[in-house]
Amino acid sequence: MKPLFSQALKFENNHLWVLDQQKLPTEVEWIDCQSPLHMIDIIQSLKVRGEPLIGIAAALSLAHFVEQYTPGEEEFFRLANQLRKVKPTAIHLGYCIDYQLQIYRRTRDYQAVIQAAEALFLEEANLSTAVAEYGAKLIRDGENILTHCNTGGLVTTGIGTALGIIKLAHQQGKKIHVYVDETRPLLQGARLTAWELEQAGIPYTLICDNTAAFCMQLRKIDRILVGADRIAANGDAANKIGTYNLAVLAHYHHIPFHIAAPRTAIDWQCTSGNSICIEERAEHEVKGISGSFGEVTWTPEASHCFNPAFDVIPAELITSFILDNGVMASLKEELCA
Amino acid sequence: MKPLFSQALKFENNHLWVLDQQKLPTEVEWIDCQSPLHMIDIIQSLKVRGEPLIGIAAALSLAHFVEQYTPGEEEFFRLANQLRKVKPTAIHLGYCIDYQLQIYRRTRDYQAVIQAAEALFLEEANLSTAVAEYGAKLIRDGENILTHCNTGGLVTTGIGTALGIIKLAHQQGKKIHVYVDETRPLLQGARLTAWELEQAGIPYTLICDNTAAFCMQLRKIDRILVGADRIAANGDAANKIGTYNLAVLAHYHHIPFHIAAPRTAIDWQCTSGNSICIEERAEHEVKGISGSFGEVTWTPEASHCFNPAFDVIPAELITSFILDNGVMASLKEELCA
Repeated sequence: MKPLFSQALKFENNHLWVLDQQKLPTEVEWIDCQSPLHMIDIIQSLKVRGEPLIGIAAALSLAHFVEQYTPGEEEFFRLANQLRKVKPTAIHLGYCIDYQLQIYRRTRDYQAVIQAAEALFLEEANLSTAVAEYGAKLIRDGENILTHCNTGGLVTTGIGTALGIIKLAHQQGKKIHVYVDETRPLLQGARLTAWELEQAGIPYTLICDNTAAFCMQLRKIDRILVGADRIAANGDAANKIGTYNLAVLAHYHHIPFHIAAPRTAIDWQCTSGNSICIEERAEHEVKGISGSFGEVTWTPEASHCFNPAFDVIPAELITSFILDNGVMASLKEELCA
Repeated sequence: MKPLFSQALKFENNHLWVLDQQKLPTEVEWIDCQSPLHMIDIIQSLKVRGEPLIGIAAALSLAHFVEQYTPGEEEFFRLANQLRKVKPTAIHLGYCIDYQLQIYRRTRDYQAVIQAAEALFLEEANLSTAVAEYGAKLIRDGENILTHCNTGGLVTTGIGTALGIIKLAHQQGKKIHVYVDETRPLLQGARLTAWELEQAGIPYTLICDNTAAFCMQLRKIDRILVGADRIAANGDAANKIGTYNLAVLAHYHHIPFHIAAPRTAIDWQCTSGNSICIEERAEHEVKGISGSFGEVTWTPEASHCFNPAFDVIPAELITSFILDNGVMASLKEELCA
């Protein structure tokens, strides 16, 4: 496999390296990924995270494995299927692995599987550049933009989706300011988006998730930009828990609410948000915090928690979709495009 | 001063004791309050918190001081004014101190100031019982109730306001289940409301603040009950940051949204929410967590944060006010009552 470089994933000197995002912003530490099973553990523990990076990371781990060991077909298909199933909401993960499987079935050549992974890596960088370019056209000088979770260079092999738009608008010289939801329980906003904005020199203010509404009431927010893990054919979108909250608030306050994602996040087989299966994560994530910065628990020991990883934003609350081929008010436009 | 007992404040053996709520649920520790200045520190550090408890606590500290030291008039007025100003949104604090000042001006007798504090303590217990009784009538068997912050026996000298209603409904044998917002940044829901519900044996589920919207979308919430720090004459109410968020969500999902508070929280001099001054608290509260359970910071060091302590709920989003003299759709009813 040829050398590949991005902010959180790289292939160098015949090693596949994954930036440990659980350790940010305290430490910048790269994990030497040993195998597809190691990658499954890395994905499950959120060390690599977010659409579309986990798809590319999984594809690279499969490519690296076949390059190292030339496994039997049975083992290849078994590992591919295990990777494919590790995160149910991640449509792009399925897309990447299926792409490799399809090419293998046609060619029976592991070299083609490796080239497929390289192509996915480079294609992804191009897709996020395209999303960022279409999105940045919407941003006016002086805007205050609210974002949730992390959708930057840490989740793609390129500039990012929602955060990529923000970065590109800033690079274009537009004076913007970003409100960052901390994004409980795992604090991807407070840890990762804050870190990326700081690296990029973009002014931002961190808020608790419950403060976004008050900011909108105070007219501090001009626009909301978020990503999507999966978009159904009718335009309903699944994204990090708390995104639906923002969509309702945006609707009430008449603030534009955009989903930014490459078309690979669209699952045309999935007719509506009702069919999207929502992963429930462990209760201890809500009962406290743990990371490289430390570990604390603040609830009574016996507390029960509800900890869905995602929620679903109905299409009618989405002002527009910023895709890699343009900005569309609904997916019907994309179907006709 | 005669002995007085409640869940978080007591006068016993000539000492004024305040339960350190910052240490809950990990430790149950009482602070021996030495003076009004000590009480100001206790209030500012949120060891005693919430309307109406801080008002009573301040009044008791003033009463205890005059009983111990029989100060000159000038010192008495100075300390009373310092106590009065410690928390700008807390109308009830002003009410309690003003009540003592008024009685002193009429009688010039410190014994009357002491009796006034005792009366405030006992009156408060009666007020929250009355709020709880009116509110509990609204609760139907089997309801799922969402609450925010902490409004129970830890913030009054009685059963509590919003949480008092929940406790009384449970005592009446109604099968209820409570969703508890964790209430960032200081986690009064996750620490204190969870602790009180556990003490009372009421089933509850803890959620991150950004998850309430998804719970409503899933039709898991039948009713929202919250308290208020201050209610303006037009019915706009100030309460813990995140309450306005819930009010907008309730409106969108057609879920009843109630403010529960004694009439002492109504500030008839304050014409609307626009006149309520919102306290902004220190940024470090958003950048991490600290308490008896430990201390962590997870953001980049240079991050800026916006940390308002309260937000304002416009009257039109409030289904009804549960007061100590009845349930009213608007404060106009209270004016005519």
